[in-house]
Amino acid sequence: MKLGELVERIEGSLEGDTELEISGIAGLVEAVAGELSFFSNPKYASSLAETKASAVIVAEDWEGSSPCAVIRVKSPDKAMAMAGYAFEPSCHPLADPGIDVASSVHEDACLDASVSVGPFCVVRPGAVIGPRTVLVSGCYVGSDAVIGSDCVLHANSVVRERVVLGNRVILHEGAVVGGEGFGNYLENGVWQKIPHIGTVEIGDDAEIGVNSTVDRARFGKTVIGQGVKIDNLVMVGHNVQVGDHTVMAAQAGIAGSATIGSHVAIGGQAGLAGHLHVGDTARVGAQAGVTKNITEGVYVTGYPAIPHDKAAKGHANLMRLQKWKEKVKLLEKKLAALEQEKS
Amino acid sequence: MKLGELVERIEGSLEGDTELEISGIAGLVEAVAGELSFFSNPKYASSLAETKASAVIVAEDWEGSSPCAVIRVKSPDKAMAMAGYAFEPSCHPLADPGIDVASSVHEDACLDASVSVGPFCVVRPGAVIGPRTVLVSGCYVGSDAVIGSDCVLHANSVVRERVVLGNRVILHEGAVVGGEGFGNYLENGVWQKIPHIGTVEIGDDAEIGVNSTVDRARFGKTVIGQGVKIDNLVMVGHNVQVGDHTVMAAQAGIAGSATIGSHVAIGGQAGLAGHLHVGDTARVGAQAGVTKNITEGVYVTGYPAIPHDKAAKGHANLMRLQKWKEKVKLLEKKLAALEQEKS
Amino acid sequence: MKLGELVERIEGSLEGDTELEISGIAGLVEAVAGELSFFSNPKYASSLAETKASAVIVAEDWEGSSPCAVIRVKSPDKAMAMAGYAFEPSCHPLADPGIDVASSVHEDACLDASVSVGPFCVVRPGAVIGPRTVLVSGCYVGSDAVIGSDCVLHANSVVRERVVLGNRVILHEGAVVGGEGFGNYLENGVWQKIPHIGTVEIGDDAEIGVNSTVDRARFGKTVIGQGVKIDNLVMVGHNVQVGDHTVMAAQAGIAGSATIGSHVAIGGQAGLAGHLHVGDTARVGAQAGVTKNITEGVYVTGYPAIPHDKAAKGHANLMRLQKWKEKVKLLEKKLAALEQEKS
Repeated sequence: MKLGELVERIEGSLEGDTELEISGIAGLVEAVAGELSFFSNPKYASSLAETKASAVIVAEDWEGSSPCAVIRVKSPDKAMAMAGYAFEPSCHPLADPGIDVASSVHEDACLDASVSVGPFCVVRPGAVIGPRTVLVSGCYVGSDAVIGSDCVLHANSVVRERVVLGNRVILHEGAVVGGEGFGNYLENGVWQKIPHIGTVEIGDDAEIGVNSTVDRARFGKTVIGQGVKIDNLVMVGHNVQVGDHTVMAAQAGIAGSATIGSHVAIGGQAGLAGHLHVGDTARVGAQAGVTKNITEGVYVTGYPAIPHDKAAKGHANLMRLQKWKEKVKLLEKKLAALEQEKS
Repeated sequence: MKLGELVERIEGSLEGDTELEISGIAGLVEAVAGELSFFSNPKYASSLAETKASAVIVAEDWEGSSPCAVIRVKSPDKAMAMAGYAFEPSCHPLADPGIDVASSVHEDACLDASVSVGPFCVVRPGAVIGPRTVLVSGCYVGSDAVIGSDCVLHANSVVRERVVLGNRVILHEGAVVGGEGFGNYLENGVWQKIPHIGTVEIGDDAEIGVNSTVDRARFGKTVIGQGVKIDNLVMVGHNVQVGDHTVMAAQAGIAGSATIGSHVAIGGQAGLAGHLHVGDTARVGAQAGVTKNITEGVYVTGYPAIPHDKAAKGHANLMRLQKWKEKVKLLEKKLAALEQEKS
Repeated sequence: MKLGELVERIEGSLEGDTELEISGIAGLVEAVAGELSFFSNPKYASSLAETKASAVIVAEDWEGSSPCAVIRVKSPDKAMAMAGYAFEPSCHPLADPGIDVASSVHEDACLDASVSVGPFCVVRPGAVIGPRTVLVSGCYVGSDAVIGSDCVLHANSVVRERVVLGNRVILHEGAVVGGEGFGNYLENGVWQKIPHIGTVEIGDDAEIGVNSTVDRARFGKTVIGQGVKIDNLVMVGHNVQVGDHTVMAAQAGIAGSATIGSHVAIGGQAGLAGHLHVGDTARVGAQAGVTKNITEGVYVTGYPAIPHDKAAKGHANLMRLQKWKEKVKLLEKKLAALEQEKS
């Protein structure tokens, strides 16, 4: 692809030769001649200076010098995404169109004619699947599940009975939506299973990461809002409500019946106790252990999670304790001397 | 279902109209007219006052007023479970009876005539599967594995060779029992695999959550006791022994050769080091990092995990350090003044 | 097997009867007459004294007494591994040779004649699979993926398009290599997906544990070095580079673009932030939360992770705070008394 064409596609302004041939995309360090790279994290300034890339995407207002052609854009992240699609129009391992003969689609399921079902997928009676949705392979769609249009169910992902997915939802490999919630009650010292007869509803444009799990509700429904992005190996418990455009990094866990606001960011390996509320736009640090409600907009870290400035101050104080112990010892000594003199 | 019939099924006593028609179950907030709800967590008292439900399950000795019919029961949890089964008799996505033609069951496997094997399941030679057990779809049962009666293997769950499951065991989607233990030894700077030739034994009524893993023993067996309930994304290492009726919340991890007592409760994301012992009825808090044995009945939290009251006091002290620093500074000042006067 | 033959196979020196018949391997406590056991952890000395095993493997220079025959070896771990293979020559659930009729192998894939493909596996066009590699069942191999010789892909494991595996690589059940990286950018308050058009490269002899995930790179490649051993439920983010012979225990997580050196050891449930560097032979304690670069050879623990001796001292100081509070109170009292006297 000519650099000029690429610049047009990503809506940038070029300082360089439109006729350059661009063969691919690479990091600043790895790029070779003919490749496009990008620069946004100041941490990598020295890598920019030494890059072998032929062109680099930078922010509109970037001031600096580059050893290669420069493409200024409003949002480098967006521009890189668009460049990615330019080189690899589909990022999904599309199954062949139609229903693979080696699949098990029940005659009472209702699939749009444009649906693609790969090998070894199971679709149970009453399931409804919308236009252009792709089941890659080994997927399971339970009875009466409803899946919107343009969804992608990657290999071995599971949608249990009665679960509802919106449009453009992506389930990554091994993701399980609608597994039974974890709930038991004790009877004479023996745990008895609580049936979870509710379901899960997932909004448009949401993504559930590889091997992540979203449990069905005890009754009613577990809700994942629109545009929610969930990374790999995340656990969302039964009856949890997640607001629109919230993100969760890998291995985070939300216990049952918690309600999470919109535009919340939850860090990797963070854990949230059940039945609590997290306000809109709040942030939970990686590995934080949240035991109480979090107010809108607040950033918490640590265990138990508290506002980050407090947690950081607490840790700093902890690290200085040795010094304070010595101060106290000195005080004891001086005071003893004074008392000695008195007597 | 008439309210009177429901009350009989859940063994409650009704204050209200037996002829009311009940159409389903919902939370206090979500319920509409005609639905049953329940109240046990005092936190939700205001929701009860405003519920639109037509009937609500409460504890026998509950004192309060309700805007709708009241069903008093000994155990609200049990009553709700029974009500759940009343509306949804089977909570499992039953495969059709018999062996699906699109499955791969070896002729040298021994399946009871009442076993149900869904599509794309693999059963290897020598495997034995007891009455009424269901393999939903995409399951793998290794050679010489023994699976009891009335078990459910959900989609894509795996039972490796020689593993033994008791009766009424449930493996949720993607759960893997009998994967190879993690063990390697260094030889000239290179890790060499230690073969794990042991197996796993899972007791009656145990449940293994979605995408959870229980590794096989190096030799001998990893043991999960009767009635053990394991949530999603939990890791149980090789040679671990888990006592009866112990519960583990999501994303907990137990390293190799630990022995866990009976009726222990392990919180979400908690981690236990290898080769340690946890006494009966002990509790491990969410995210706790257990590095030493835990005595019977003790509740530990934090990292490294210590008895909870100590951990809580430690944290409280940490939060008050700023105040103590100021006290010490004041002491220094006063003492300096006294010393000054002396000289 | 005669004890003499076994001793030869594991290259040990025997103090005992070569004619003893050995039927299997077991732990010191569980072993019965006729079984082999081993002793290396001094913690289990009393178990050795009481073992019913007929022979026990010990280190060459072990001094002590044993109730049964003794086999001295240079490396007990290696000897036990060799003994394991002696009793169970293959530790893998081998699929039958050849390509199972119930699999979906594209005609444009290139498989060596010695490859074994079990039932319900999918191999997409352009994929290349080397000699003696085994796909157990339900595996997915994406288009243009390249898999070396003597690999084992356990049940339901996934290799996405263009991913490259070396030789003797093992993917355990449900492991997913090449899932899409987690990356999004905000546009008018809505998260937009960043395509990940890169790939993953896995070195010879590496193992990826049950249900673990290694994401593909945004561009370029995520790299897992030679001999890297990854336990269950581990998350390796996009563009991460892991050096040779590094090990990661269960449920550890590495965020995007981190670079991990060689011979690093990462404990269970540890988390590493993105874009940081861990030097060769460094150690990260279980549950540690790494937020900064780690120097070669350093051992860090806690959150935020710091060198272990500092972290341990910090914790010890925290536990002694109560004592120091009392000291300060006493100082205040004494000083007040002195001041009182003055006036």
